[in-house]
Amino acid sequence: MRSIPGGTFVALILSVLANALGSYAGKILVFPVDGSHWVNMNLLIEGLHARNHNITVVRSASSWYVKEKSPHYTSITIPLPEVINIEDEDFFVSFLSKILEIQRGGASILTFISFYWEMLTGLSEIHRQASQLVVEMFKNQQLMQSLQDTQFDLVLMDPGLPGGVLVAHQLQLPVVFNVRWITSGEGHFVVAPSPVSYVPTSGCAVPDKMTFTQRVKNMFHYFLNICIDTFVVSPHYNRLCIQYFGPDTKFYHLLQSIDIWLMRVDFVFEFPRPTMPNIVYIGGFQCKPAKALPSDLEEFVQSSGDHGVVIMSLGTLIKGLPADITSEIAAAFAQIPQKVIWRHIGEQPQNLGNNTLLVQWMPQNDLLGHPKIKAFVAHGGTNGIYEAIYHGVPVLGMPLLFDQFDNLLRLEVRGAAKVLDVTKLTSQSFLQALQNILQDPSYQRNMERLSSLHRDKPLPPLDSAFFWIEFVMRHKGAAHLRTESIKLPWYTYHSLDVISFLIVTMLAILATAAAMFHLLCCRLCRMRKLKQE
Amino acid sequence: MRSIPGGTFVALILSVLANALGSYAGKILVFPVDGSHWVNMNLLIEGLHARNHNITVVRSASSWYVKEKSPHYTSITIPLPEVINIEDEDFFVSFLSKILEIQRGGASILTFISFYWEMLTGLSEIHRQASQLVVEMFKNQQLMQSLQDTQFDLVLMDPGLPGGVLVAHQLQLPVVFNVRWITSGEGHFVVAPSPVSYVPTSGCAVPDKMTFTQRVKNMFHYFLNICIDTFVVSPHYNRLCIQYFGPDTKFYHLLQSIDIWLMRVDFVFEFPRPTMPNIVYIGGFQCKPAKALPSDLEEFVQSSGDHGVVIMSLGTLIKGLPADITSEIAAAFAQIPQKVIWRHIGEQPQNLGNNTLLVQWMPQNDLLGHPKIKAFVAHGGTNGIYEAIYHGVPVLGMPLLFDQFDNLLRLEVRGAAKVLDVTKLTSQSFLQALQNILQDPSYQRNMERLSSLHRDKPLPPLDSAFFWIEFVMRHKGAAHLRTESIKLPWYTYHSLDVISFLIVTMLAILATAAAMFHLLCCRLCRMRKLKQE
Repeated sequence: MRSIPGGTFVALILSVLANALGSYAGKILVFPVDGSHWVNMNLLIEGLHARNHNITVVRSASSWYVKEKSPHYTSITIPLPEVINIEDEDFFVSFLSKILEIQRGGASILTFISFYWEMLTGLSEIHRQASQLVVEMFKNQQLMQSLQDTQFDLVLMDPGLPGGVLVAHQLQLPVVFNVRWITSGEGHFVVAPSPVSYVPTSGCAVPDKMTFTQRVKNMFHYFLNICIDTFVVSPHYNRLCIQYFGPDTKFYHLLQSIDIWLMRVDFVFEFPRPTMPNIVYIGGFQCKPAKALPSDLEEFVQSSGDHGVVIMSLGTLIKGLPADITSEIAAAFAQIPQKVIWRHIGEQPQNLGNNTLLVQWMPQNDLLGHPKIKAFVAHGGTNGIYEAIYHGVPVLGMPLLFDQFDNLLRLEVRGAAKVLDVTKLTSQSFLQALQNILQDPSYQRNMERLSSLHRDKPLPPLDSAFFWIEFVMRHKGAAHLRTESIKLPWYTYHSLDVISFLIVTMLAILATAAAMFHLLCCRLCRMRKLKQE
Repeated sequence: MRSIPGGTFVALILSVLANALGSYAGKILVFPVDGSHWVNMNLLIEGLHARNHNITVVRSASSWYVKEKSPHYTSITIPLPEVINIEDEDFFVSFLSKILEIQRGGASILTFISFYWEMLTGLSEIHRQASQLVVEMFKNQQLMQSLQDTQFDLVLMDPGLPGGVLVAHQLQLPVVFNVRWITSGEGHFVVAPSPVSYVPTSGCAVPDKMTFTQRVKNMFHYFLNICIDTFVVSPHYNRLCIQYFGPDTKFYHLLQSIDIWLMRVDFVFEFPRPTMPNIVYIGGFQCKPAKALPSDLEEFVQSSGDHGVVIMSLGTLIKGLPADITSEIAAAFAQIPQKVIWRHIGEQPQNLGNNTLLVQWMPQNDLLGHPKIKAFVAHGGTNGIYEAIYHGVPVLGMPLLFDQFDNLLRLEVRGAAKVLDVTKLTSQSFLQALQNILQDPSYQRNMERLSSLHRDKPLPPLDSAFFWIEFVMRHKGAAHLRTESIKLPWYTYHSLDVISFLIVTMLAILATAAAMFHLLCCRLCRMRKLKQE
C-alpha cells in the first residue's frame, strides 16, 4: 500500500479505528425541531453520544419536548419574546375538527378560505419566530464568540425550521440535515430534478403513475408549494441572509449547499424518483426488534387465541376523534372475532365491545412485532408506518392531517393497506375494510414482501446515518457529492439561453440561405430577360 | 420479532446466512463485452464464483479475451458468420494515427468527414453483429429451451453491447448491468434526468461548471448522441424487439426496465449529478492494495533514491505512439533526476536517457502503490485512473481516444492532474508539465485527498456489487427501485400536455372575463345613452 504523508495517513487510520470503535470524539451543534420531529433527532443524538461525540443542542426557552438537561447533550437556551407551540395538542384538536367540518361539506367556501388563510398565517408566524431565534443568537455576540471558540465539527439539523443553516454559514461549519420535509415541501425538490409527471408533490396524495387529472392536480400543488415557499416561508430567512451576509447570499443556496441530507425515506415505501449523490436514505432508522410485552398485555394478547389481535393508534398528536366517529369504530370492533387494543384518549365510547381494550398508551413497536397482531389501524404518521413495514403488519389507514394521506397512499398502491375516508366513515364501512384486511391474505403477503425488502440492506439505516455524519466530520464536508447547479439562473439551468441561441443561429443561417437563393433567382431571371430582349 | 410465514422466513434467514457466508448458490447468465470491458466483468465473475454461484458466460465463437474454458464459469459459444474485433490492436493503431493526423490539422475537411463517417459505419456494424448474436440464439430453439430449463436467477451483462436484454426479456429474468457506457453514450442519460446545463455529455470533455460556449458544445453533443443512438445503434435492436416481442416492446424500455445498474463510477471522480435509486456506484471496485514488486524492478525503483520514480503507460490498446512523439518524450525523461519506468511497445527511441527503463509490461497497480512512485504518465483509461486515485499518485495525462479526454478533465479540474495535447507535444512542454507535477506539492495533496475520500466508504465497492447482485437474486428483481417513467410519451414526461391544458384553461377564463366585462361596458354605455336621450 502506498504511504501517504504523516498527517493524512494518521487521520485515515484514526478515522477507520474510530469508525470501528465508535470513539472519534467530534463536537456537534444541533438545531432540532420540537414535537414529533424531536423523537427522531433524539435517537440520532443518543447514538452519537454513545459513539463518544459531544453534542450541544440549541433550544428555545419555551421548548416543549427538547429538555434543558439531558445525559446525552448540553443545551443552549435562547429566550424568545413570544412563542406558538407548533405541536400544541389543543391547537391540533381544534385544527382537526375544522378540517373534518370542511371535508364533510359542512363549511361554506368562505370558511374554507378563511381556514386556509389562517393556516398560511400560522405557517408564516412559525417561521417568523424560528427566524427570530437566529436573530437572538446573532445579537448575542458573547454566545457567537463562544460557539466560534468551541470549534464545532458539524451542524446537525432538522430543516423543518431551517434557521440553523444561517448560523452554520456564519460559523463556516459543514451541515448534515436529518430531514423528512423542508420549509414548505419536499426536500428532494430543492436538490434533485423532480419531473412533475411522475414525482408526486408533497401533500398532493397522488401516486407515481398518474391519470391526466392527477397530473393537473400535481402541477397545481407544485405551483402552490412554490408560492407558499416564495411568499410565506423564505422571506423570513432571505431577509436575514441579506441583513447578515449581504445581497448575494440566498437562503435557498444555503439550503442547497449543505453537505449530506439524511432523508427519512426508504424506497420500499417512497416511489422511485431522481435523487442526488449527497442524499442518504435512512427511512426506518428508528425501527428495532420488539421487546417482550408487559405481562398483563401479553395475557390479553394470548387470550385472542388463533384469531389474533388488531391494534389501533392515531399517534401522539391527536387526543381524540369526534365522539360520533369513535362510536362507529367501537361498533365495528365489537363485531370481529379478534381482540382489539385501542389507544384512546378522551371519553370512552358507550358501545365498546367486550373484545376491545382501551389504553392510554401502548408499546406500539413491541405490539407490532408480536406474532399475534393481525392488523394495525393507524393515522399514517411516518414513524408508525415504518414500524408496520419493519414488522410486516398490514394497515387500515385513517389519514387525518399533513403527510398522512401521502403516506397511506403509498402503502395502498403496494397492496399493503386499505385507506378509509374518516369523514364518510360508518361502522359498516370500517368493518368491511377491516375484515377485508384480516381475511384477504394478499395484504399480509404484500406487507411481508415490503418488510423483507426493507430489512435487506448492506448497512442498517441508523449505522448509515452515523457513517455519513462522521464522514462529514472526518473530511470537513462532502463538497464532492453536491452540485451547485441551483446557483445558475433559472434560464441557464433549463438551458433556455443555449436553446434560444441555437434557434436564432439556425434562423439566421436559414435566412441567409433564403436571401442568397432569392438573389440567385433574381439574377437568373434578369439574365434570362436580358437574353430574351 | 414478529414471525413471518414459514417460507418467507426461512428464505430470509437463508439469505442472511448466505450473505454472511457467501454460500447462496445462484445461477447467473452473463453477457460480457470483449476486450478491456471483459477485465472488469471477469473480476465480478471470479468473485461470484468464489461466493458459490454458478456462472454461464455467452461468448461468440471468435471471442478474443473471453475464453471458452475457465475454472470460474462454463461457456456457451455462439457461432457468428463474420466478425469485426472491436478492440483489435492493428485497428486501433491505424485509428489513432488518423485521429492524430486530423487533430494536427494535416487533414482536409473531406478526410475528417470520411473518417467520422467510417467511425459511425463501424459502430453500426459492431451493433449489427452484436444483435446478430441474439438472432442466432433465438434461432437455436434447443439452446433457448435449455436456458429456460436451467432456471437462471439473473442475467448479468455489460450493456456496451446490449443484446442480452432481449434474451433476458425472453427468459423473463431480472437483469443487473455492469456498466460504464451504454450503446452510444452515458448510462445515466437513460435513467435519470440529466440537465445539460451542468451534466456533461459523454465525449464532450467539458466540466460541470461550464461557460456559455461549453454549454452550447454540450448541447450539441447531447443532440449528436441522441442522433447516433436513434439512427445508428437502436435500429438494430428495435428491429429484433418488433420481430420477437411485437410492436409494443421498445428497446429503450427494456434497457430502462432492468433492475440494478452497477455503475463503474465514483463521485470522487465523476461530477455530482442526478441519479436513480437503482443505480449503485462501484467505481474503483477493481482497486486493491499493492503487492511486492519483482526483485529486479524493486532494485531499479530503490536506485532512484529520494528523487523517486515516474511511471508511464498508455494502456493495453495502444501499441505505440508515432516515433516523433516518443522521441520528444524520451528527451524530456532524460532531463529529470527521477528514474522512469515506461511501458513501451514498438521501436526504442534513439535518445533514451540512462534513467529510463523500457518494459513490455508492468505490474501497474503494485508500482502505483509503491511509496517511491511520484507521478503517473497515463492516457486516462478508466481503470488506470481509479488505480491512481486509490493509491494517491498524481497524473500527467495524454488523452488519445474515447472517454480518456473526459476522464483526465475530471482529475485536472480537481487539481490532481495536468493534461497535455499529444498533437502539440514537444520535449519542452512535456518536461515542463512533468516538473510541475513533481515540484508543486498541490498535485500530490489533491490526489491524496481524492484517495482518502474514495477509500472512506461504508462498504467496499466490490462488496457493494456482490450485495446488490445477490439482492436481486434473493428478491427476484428490484422493481421497487426503478421508475417506469420513460414509458410515458415525451410530451407527458415533460408535462407539456398539462401545461398546454392549464394555459388554454387560463386563456378561456380570461377571455370569458374579458367578454363579460365588454358586455357589461356596452350595457352601461347603452344605459347611459338611453338616459341622456
